[in-house]
Amino acid sequence: MIRLNEHFTKLKASYLFADIAKRVNAYVAVNPAKPVIRLGIGDVTEPLPPVCIAALHAATEEMANRATFRGYGPEQGYAFLREAIAQHDFAALGTKIEPDEVFVSDGSKCDIANIQEIFAADTRLAIPDPVYPVYVDTNVMAGRTGMNRDGRYDGIIYLDSTVANGYVPAPPKEAADLIYLCFPNNPTGAVATRAQLAAWVAYARQHSAIILYDAAYESYVRTPGIPRSIYEIEGARDVAIEFRSFSKLAGFTGLRCAYTVVPKTLQARDAAGHQQAVHALWHRWHTTKFNGVAYPVQKAAAAVYTPEGQKQTRALTDFYLGNAKLIREAMTKLGLSCIGGDNAPYIWVNVRRDSWEFFDLLLNRAQVVITPGAGFGRCGEGHIRISAFNTHENVTAALTRIATAVM
Amino acid sequence: MIRLNEHFTKLKASYLFADIAKRVNAYVAVNPAKPVIRLGIGDVTEPLPPVCIAALHAATEEMANRATFRGYGPEQGYAFLREAIAQHDFAALGTKIEPDEVFVSDGSKCDIANIQEIFAADTRLAIPDPVYPVYVDTNVMAGRTGMNRDGRYDGIIYLDSTVANGYVPAPPKEAADLIYLCFPNNPTGAVATRAQLAAWVAYARQHSAIILYDAAYESYVRTPGIPRSIYEIEGARDVAIEFRSFSKLAGFTGLRCAYTVVPKTLQARDAAGHQQAVHALWHRWHTTKFNGVAYPVQKAAAAVYTPEGQKQTRALTDFYLGNAKLIREAMTKLGLSCIGGDNAPYIWVNVRRDSWEFFDLLLNRAQVVITPGAGFGRCGEGHIRISAFNTHENVTAALTRIATAVM
Repeated sequence: MIRLNEHFTKLKASYLFADIAKRVNAYVAVNPAKPVIRLGIGDVTEPLPPVCIAALHAATEEMANRATFRGYGPEQGYAFLREAIAQHDFAALGTKIEPDEVFVSDGSKCDIANIQEIFAADTRLAIPDPVYPVYVDTNVMAGRTGMNRDGRYDGIIYLDSTVANGYVPAPPKEAADLIYLCFPNNPTGAVATRAQLAAWVAYARQHSAIILYDAAYESYVRTPGIPRSIYEIEGARDVAIEFRSFSKLAGFTGLRCAYTVVPKTLQARDAAGHQQAVHALWHRWHTTKFNGVAYPVQKAAAAVYTPEGQKQTRALTDFYLGNAKLIREAMTKLGLSCIGGDNAPYIWVNVRRDSWEFFDLLLNRAQVVITPGAGFGRCGEGHIRISAFNTHENVTAALTRIATAVM
Repeated sequence: MIRLNEHFTKLKASYLFADIAKRVNAYVAVNPAKPVIRLGIGDVTEPLPPVCIAALHAATEEMANRATFRGYGPEQGYAFLREAIAQHDFAALGTKIEPDEVFVSDGSKCDIANIQEIFAADTRLAIPDPVYPVYVDTNVMAGRTGMNRDGRYDGIIYLDSTVANGYVPAPPKEAADLIYLCFPNNPTGAVATRAQLAAWVAYARQHSAIILYDAAYESYVRTPGIPRSIYEIEGARDVAIEFRSFSKLAGFTGLRCAYTVVPKTLQARDAAGHQQAVHALWHRWHTTKFNGVAYPVQKAAAAVYTPEGQKQTRALTDFYLGNAKLIREAMTKLGLSCIGGDNAPYIWVNVRRDSWEFFDLLLNRAQVVITPGAGFGRCGEGHIRISAFNTHENVTAALTRIATAVM
């Protein structure tokens, strides 16, 4: 008699954005005449950069002719893309990442969800709060946590991100094995300084731990000196895996392309206590459970690294950062303190009241959808996340409506 | 101190097709003047059907304009594709599958690799031999087997597919929980009759087991009466999950689109012994660990279901079946018995000698790459798999070379 994975029952009832979608759909169903503006889920609204469109058309033509047709590609991605990534995203920063340390995939969500499979079942986790729910949920599903009590799972070391620490947690006193970090942060928009990241790298080296560094929003960093990659920190190659995405960089949320960097110098112990290369395990995972990203999509991603592509994607991220500035200013004007929005497309607003209640208030009175902070963890309570991913027009309209609703 | 998933060490050294690639690359490196013909890995060679090319171009244009741009889609796939699938692949066969029982993904390999995650750790597996290695390897990685002894893992019920049973195994005497079946089969090309599948459905119902039915090659079935879907069997909705792919149907190996059907009537026990819908768990898996397939790719997949698309994909599969017929005839002429090739793009040849030795012989003397049967399991020894995925010209040339090399 077949039984289900019992760990799924520990999960909270459903996924945050599905919950939000349900409430919004219910509202829209009874208020069809009131157009809703969505600043909730972090989804881009602007079209793909022209270089990517041209690359998609060209690759489609290649797929139309036997002589240039491409079937299965390498599971880890085509060399043309891995080489462009190593050159432009790492060598240009003065960091050394080899092309074969780059694993191209169909999304950072998938990568960060899958990576935990290569580690032991009793790995001790350190996870920020508030946090992107996927970090926690995938570990719950894999049986790496205990039960959920009052919104927190037994067996996880939670890293509180609060006003008190400027929303950037320092390493804990306890020894963790696997640490999830995300900068620029989702949901808070906070960035970590070089010194703050160096403290984490030192902690990981001391405890033979591994840092999973989610840099999906790296392209929004504007403040000079703020690291764009964990590998800018001395010694990080031995203790960190980095995740990057084309989603927020080039509007690929509907096209699906991302990558994971696993340095060949990164090691972990096997059951017998011997050091093994993590790279070999992730390579085995990739060849066994994945079959590569669509060829036209990889060509579109490579186009991002051309000089025109660099200009066009910079303009795209500048555009969203323009929205972010407006949001931040409007919230400040309402007397609400906030962080993020300067090096990130998210603004984390301290609303000093129940965050789902505030969500409902904005939905009902302003027809604006934001994300309630409580959905990201206990420390998210009292906060909301506002996303800058929308048109200028919608953002401006939403801010006017919010001001009216709140005042 | 972080430790690796210790189950990975149980895996055999590397992945079959990677092994083959290594041997072929080594040969090519020292024999650059001798062009190799590849009838090994099952990768398509013909360009995408014109309807798919047109759909890719049109969807790319949608992505170029703010008004028609698509960001994140539903993780389970767009309604337009799920509805077309339910209508054309199931309603047309007289079977009832609802659109929301269809989960669109980026590949059958991924789906069949991931699905085991929703079942309990101590699930008893029944897996055919020979077999597509992914079924076994993903369960090894998840810790659902013991050690590998003489090429077989402890804890798996192997279903021998041999000359004696016409390469279609009957249900075992033991009670299994999760059964992997694939028809038309990879690697053997064998198909199961209605009666043979009905025996499996009856077995699964008797033991409260679930059948994972890999129908990636369904579009090659030509013999009337051979089931194209497990759901053609009475009662299968309560015991079976089906996997389908656009890879071999429409040449999508480099484009990546597939789907999994999880009927809402399919149930399994939770830890407390209560029946639960498997659909809910797979939905949770999908929303947590996956982020949907590229919009242009989903549009290309939907184009397959237009009248023109149906004609073009039929012509494509007919083309490869034409190659298959040539291969089968040539092998028979050489005095080698074989199956497959009539309702499948693979021909399984009983070469009656060591299969890696035969692989090396064909590589060195004929410059033809096939797949050694031993790579698919113990019962694959003494056999080779020849793939019909190539041009007519290459297949004809390869068959001439093989005849010379073998005689």
